[in-house]
Amino acid sequence: MVACQYTLGELADKLALDCIGDREVVITGLATLASASQGQLSFLANPKYQKDLLGTKASAVIVSAEVAACCPTNALVAANPYLSYAQTSQLFDSRCVAQGSIHHSAVVSTTAKLAPNVSIAANAVIGEHVTIAANTSIGAGVVIGDYSVVGEDCLLHANVTVYHGVTLGDRVTLHSGCVIGSDGFGFAPSPTGYIKIAQLGGVKVGCDVEIGAGTTIDRGALDDTLIGNGVIIDNQVQVAHNVQVGDNTAIAGKAGIAGSTIIGKQCTLAGGVGLVGHITIADKVHITAHTVVSKSITKAGSYSSGTGMQETSAWRKSAVRITQLDDIAKRLQRLEKR
Amino acid sequence: MVACQYTLGELADKLALDCIGDREVVITGLATLASASQGQLSFLANPKYQKDLLGTKASAVIVSAEVAACCPTNALVAANPYLSYAQTSQLFDSRCVAQGSIHHSAVVSTTAKLAPNVSIAANAVIGEHVTIAANTSIGAGVVIGDYSVVGEDCLLHANVTVYHGVTLGDRVTLHSGCVIGSDGFGFAPSPTGYIKIAQLGGVKVGCDVEIGAGTTIDRGALDDTLIGNGVIIDNQVQVAHNVQVGDNTAIAGKAGIAGSTIIGKQCTLAGGVGLVGHITIADKVHITAHTVVSKSITKAGSYSSGTGMQETSAWRKSAVRITQLDDIAKRLQRLEKR
Amino acid sequence: MVACQYTLGELADKLALDCIGDREVVITGLATLASASQGQLSFLANPKYQKDLLGTKASAVIVSAEVAACCPTNALVAANPYLSYAQTSQLFDSRCVAQGSIHHSAVVSTTAKLAPNVSIAANAVIGEHVTIAANTSIGAGVVIGDYSVVGEDCLLHANVTVYHGVTLGDRVTLHSGCVIGSDGFGFAPSPTGYIKIAQLGGVKVGCDVEIGAGTTIDRGALDDTLIGNGVIIDNQVQVAHNVQVGDNTAIAGKAGIAGSTIIGKQCTLAGGVGLVGHITIADKVHITAHTVVSKSITKAGSYSSGTGMQETSAWRKSAVRITQLDDIAKRLQRLEKR
Repeated sequence: MVACQYTLGELADKLALDCIGDREVVITGLATLASASQGQLSFLANPKYQKDLLGTKASAVIVSAEVAACCPTNALVAANPYLSYAQTSQLFDSRCVAQGSIHHSAVVSTTAKLAPNVSIAANAVIGEHVTIAANTSIGAGVVIGDYSVVGEDCLLHANVTVYHGVTLGDRVTLHSGCVIGSDGFGFAPSPTGYIKIAQLGGVKVGCDVEIGAGTTIDRGALDDTLIGNGVIIDNQVQVAHNVQVGDNTAIAGKAGIAGSTIIGKQCTLAGGVGLVGHITIADKVHITAHTVVSKSITKAGSYSSGTGMQETSAWRKSAVRITQLDDIAKRLQRLEKR
Repeated sequence: MVACQYTLGELADKLALDCIGDREVVITGLATLASASQGQLSFLANPKYQKDLLGTKASAVIVSAEVAACCPTNALVAANPYLSYAQTSQLFDSRCVAQGSIHHSAVVSTTAKLAPNVSIAANAVIGEHVTIAANTSIGAGVVIGDYSVVGEDCLLHANVTVYHGVTLGDRVTLHSGCVIGSDGFGFAPSPTGYIKIAQLGGVKVGCDVEIGAGTTIDRGALDDTLIGNGVIIDNQVQVAHNVQVGDNTAIAGKAGIAGSTIIGKQCTLAGGVGLVGHITIADKVHITAHTVVSKSITKAGSYSSGTGMQETSAWRKSAVRITQLDDIAKRLQRLEKR
Repeated sequence: MVACQYTLGELADKLALDCIGDREVVITGLATLASASQGQLSFLANPKYQKDLLGTKASAVIVSAEVAACCPTNALVAANPYLSYAQTSQLFDSRCVAQGSIHHSAVVSTTAKLAPNVSIAANAVIGEHVTIAANTSIGAGVVIGDYSVVGEDCLLHANVTVYHGVTLGDRVTLHSGCVIGSDGFGFAPSPTGYIKIAQLGGVKVGCDVEIGAGTTIDRGALDDTLIGNGVIIDNQVQVAHNVQVGDNTAIAGKAGIAGSTIIGKQCTLAGGVGLVGHITIADKVHITAHTVVSKSITKAGSYSSGTGMQETSAWRKSAVRITQLDDIAKRLQRLEKR
């Protein structure tokens, strides 16, 4: 891997932060307050960890102005320490960066158009009439189907699959095992069984999007499935055909979104959430973990379903009582009338 | 992609539908009533969209006989417009069809038997003693394990994995990232930890089956895991070892079926459904989204579990009350006795 | 496949079990009591199947001492018949074992270090400075990122992806489509959208671990994600960044574990379970299917959430009543006060 190190002063300049203390101290990595050792930079973003500040062995800490005074070591003062940590983390990313070469074992169609500085790793397969823009890196074993378009500065990790007729914007990251453009689940019942509805739409993914490992996004039946700009999607999320996800929405792991559902901007779906098909979710909606959303949500806010966890013996009683609830409610009404 | 176009008369003949209007109009694609433009064919299958019929710009619409009279443009009259749309969609599928060639980068065992017109795309790997029947297309990066059998007219999309000893019938479509024949989750506890139970069965998939992206179907412990004819399975479904899925059953995205469970024919499992192991589901059972099925279902019908969505603040109160339900029910009984 | 056969006496010796009956009978396979035919060995571990013992056509049965007397055929007498079945199953595993060869189509970095008897199948890609220990088998299409370390006697099935900087212990099995070391889902909100937090940690997987098809395990943000020794993980499980899974814990299919959660030793998570982030689960905790765990669990035991399945028409009433529960409880209180 690439060794990364900076003086604290260099980091302050790169991040446009004030530096308190020794600008010459060399920073070789990032760590939490509790686990940091000499030469490492830490950060304090969550007040819950303030207790770890005094004892930290970090050589410097990213802190807010309010906390700077009680920082026992060198400090970088940030308006938003968590954001500054995020920016710093990118400076310490040691993974090897592709160098704009096409591996000899990759199979690239002669009709594909590759911009300068595109990297194609070993055993990747690039289909006919595919277009890949500058500085994009295609991992080992990736397959890109015919007529798909990949933007600039994209990173497709190993073993990603992009079907034909898919468009990815700029700065899109796809993690391993994710599949973009598989057929939507469309079939017409008939007396002889299900008849497949060919999925003639595509998938359009905006710019600045990250899509997690094992996530699947189906192509549209007629129109395209749409993923907005700035959307972040975690691992093993299922996005069905003709779904639309609004800009800057975040979808956590194992969520599932059924066909033709429209999700607004700046929404957050927690892990394991399920949305039925053909509904509309307003902007700025938050849905808590494992909630099942079975109807449209028209105003911003937080929404939930499910039951709280109990010891199994107690839960069994609750579960039985739930099936008696309608009866319980009616009996209560009768009592009230007396 | 292949450009597809037909005169309306040609389509009427291919679909065996009556044509009202101009048989010579050229149809270049399919679209919804609302989004269609000139040269496109649309359809009206769901009465909910009848409002879009009058204003449609489609050059023709597939309609039922009852609606034909008020169709403002050319019409194809169908007993089942949705089914006719499905059939039409296949005529407009523009994806390139494989041409029966073996890509030079594919690794095909010398003991594999390939029927005429089998296509093997770049970097696919075909194991020893594999048999692939006529007209089947194997996508880029697909791996098929030793002694597996693939039927006629199958389509295995890029990066599918089929383990050894798996049998696929005719006209089976597997989407990218799906895995057929991985080991069932079988271990015997022992004082020194879990001891693996070798999974000695296989997987048998019937004819006319479609399996979605990222879906996993485990091989059996001793006997085979069985997927019936005409079964359709969406993305990210987990089918454990020794499950049996009856003919023409449909399983939506992210459903999970635990080991040795038997599902009847013509069932429909909605998204996110979970079935525990060792239970039996009758024919023609419908299970609604995210239901957890913890016991056998002996008669046809619709089954559900879970709670309705609320705003989180209200939901918190409900969730707490559910844990008090047994107490509430007992207090109600006491009041009733008074 | 490899044909496996043993005399019953050979099996008794290999498994260190007493043999009652004909030591010379040839055993060619394993089967359940009900489906076994001549030449096959069966086992009786679950009393529920004792009814099948008398009529079995198996040539021998693994039984407990108590049952041995009523075994109608040859018997292997075991203290724990299920465990002995597990051990026997491994003797009958007929899959071809890799022979320590590197396929000419594999792309192995010149800086990778391969111990003796490592097998690399077709089209696998081994990154720079990767270390692979003795007797490990890498399947077709597998990709291993730079600087990762794979222990002895590991088996990575086809199309597995291991990112850079991942460590796998000895005797680790990874099933197809699983992804180890993808980026954790870490982003800092900013006025211009989400800013990615580079995931600088890795993943450390212990020894004697099995990980199922399509499972994803993210690398840590700063520290490593940790999977203990003897852990078994089923298909399509999501393990987020900085999760720690204790030794000998079992996680069934489609479970999801959010970031930084710590799971104890010898826990069992059933299918579809969801754990929120930043919680701690004690040792020997069992969580039933599809339970959502939203807070830490401090003592061993069984825990559940969710509702029981009903026919949909009845369930709708229960679901509505649940949303009225707080009101119902308050009305009951008022009645009690009267």
